Amino acid sequence: MARWEGGAADRFREAALELYAERGYEQTTVAEIAERAGLTARTFFRHFTDKREVLFAGSETLREGLEAALREAPADASPMTAIGLALERSAAFLGRDHRHSRRRQAIISANPELQERELIKMATLAAALGSGLRDRGVPEPDASLAAQAGIAVFQVAFGRWVTAETETDLAAEMRFLLDRLPAVASR
Amino acid sequence: MARWEGGAADRFREAALELYAERGYEQTTVAEIAERAGLTARTFFRHFTDKREVLFAGSETLREGLEAALREAPADASPMTAIGLALERSAAFLGRDHRHSRRRQAIISANPELQERELIKMATLAAALGSGLRDRGVPEPDASLAAQAGIAVFQVAFGRWVTAETETDLAAEMRFLLDRLPAVASR
Repeated sequence: MARWEGGAADRFREAALELYAERGYEQTTVAEIAERAGLTARTFFRHFTDKREVLFAGSETLREGLEAALREAPADASPMTAIGLALERSAAFLGRDHRHSRRRQAIISANPELQERELIKMATLAAALGSGLRDRGVPEPDASLAAQAGIAVFQVAFGRWVTAETETDLAAEMRFLLDRLPAVASR
Repeated sequence: MARWEGGAADRFREAALELYAERGYEQTTVAEIAERAGLTARTFFRHFTDKREVLFAGSETLREGLEAALREAPADASPMTAIGLALERSAAFLGRDHRHSRRRQAIISANPELQERELIKMATLAAALGSGLRDRGVPEPDASLAAQAGIAVFQVAFGRWVTAETETDLAAEMRFLLDRLPAVASR
């Protein structure tokens, strides 16, 4: 049963990505996604609240992963070392399927409403990182600054990775930019 | 004529802030703003496209200021020195009226739609900074990384300044965080 459920979500996801790319996100209905997936709209709504959630269903898992990585980082890790471990975790989660991520990104880039949703997601992740650092005892303004700097690295690394024509390693991209940040941040 | 026009925009702005705070942004109409300002709705629409724009009318001026500061920065300025000059410019523009900024922020914080608009504004500013650095010959990924790091400083500095009960100096807050960033960014 659990296995079949997982299969259904994947089939909806694949059908939705196909249709969003073919017709545009706005023009696609849940009924069409269900038909393409060979399933019913009723089953769709057991997996997703709406057609937008098909593209953002992983957001909460991503946030929880970042929070867990900060909690599990060694107590003596510096704020940015802890952020680095969180970004490693996010890369393991987000970097699995380059082709899927590229297709998803193309759909989001074509739609202002989806871009807004993506910005809200990033703000939520930044808040989660800041909160996680404060829980580690990092004082302000360092906690907020390290969190926002981490999101800066995340955004540039993910943007480079997802727009690359050939597949690169998202974790390596994040490490490279984390290492580069102190020099870039110097005046 | 020009002086009177400026006065009208200010009167609409003051009336809108009062009403958004008293009744909530959603519940306030343009007709009510005009009535409170002692002007007509028709005059309102000569100054603002809608009631949201009253809160965001300065966004384009802010972006243009950042772009001009990057263009005018000394040719040998490092990317983050140029970003620092742009942030100084933004502080001169945004930091003029602490009480007004606090009132505006309280309204935005109470409304998800306005928060989204603010996130879009920040993404637009980040893109403008990245583009301005590339125009200065800064290669990637440094241009995007410095731009996002600059926005990180901007957001934390502005957030601290606008939530402070007593007035502080926004430019000094930005300089402090810019100076702090290389150490915070080190692992």
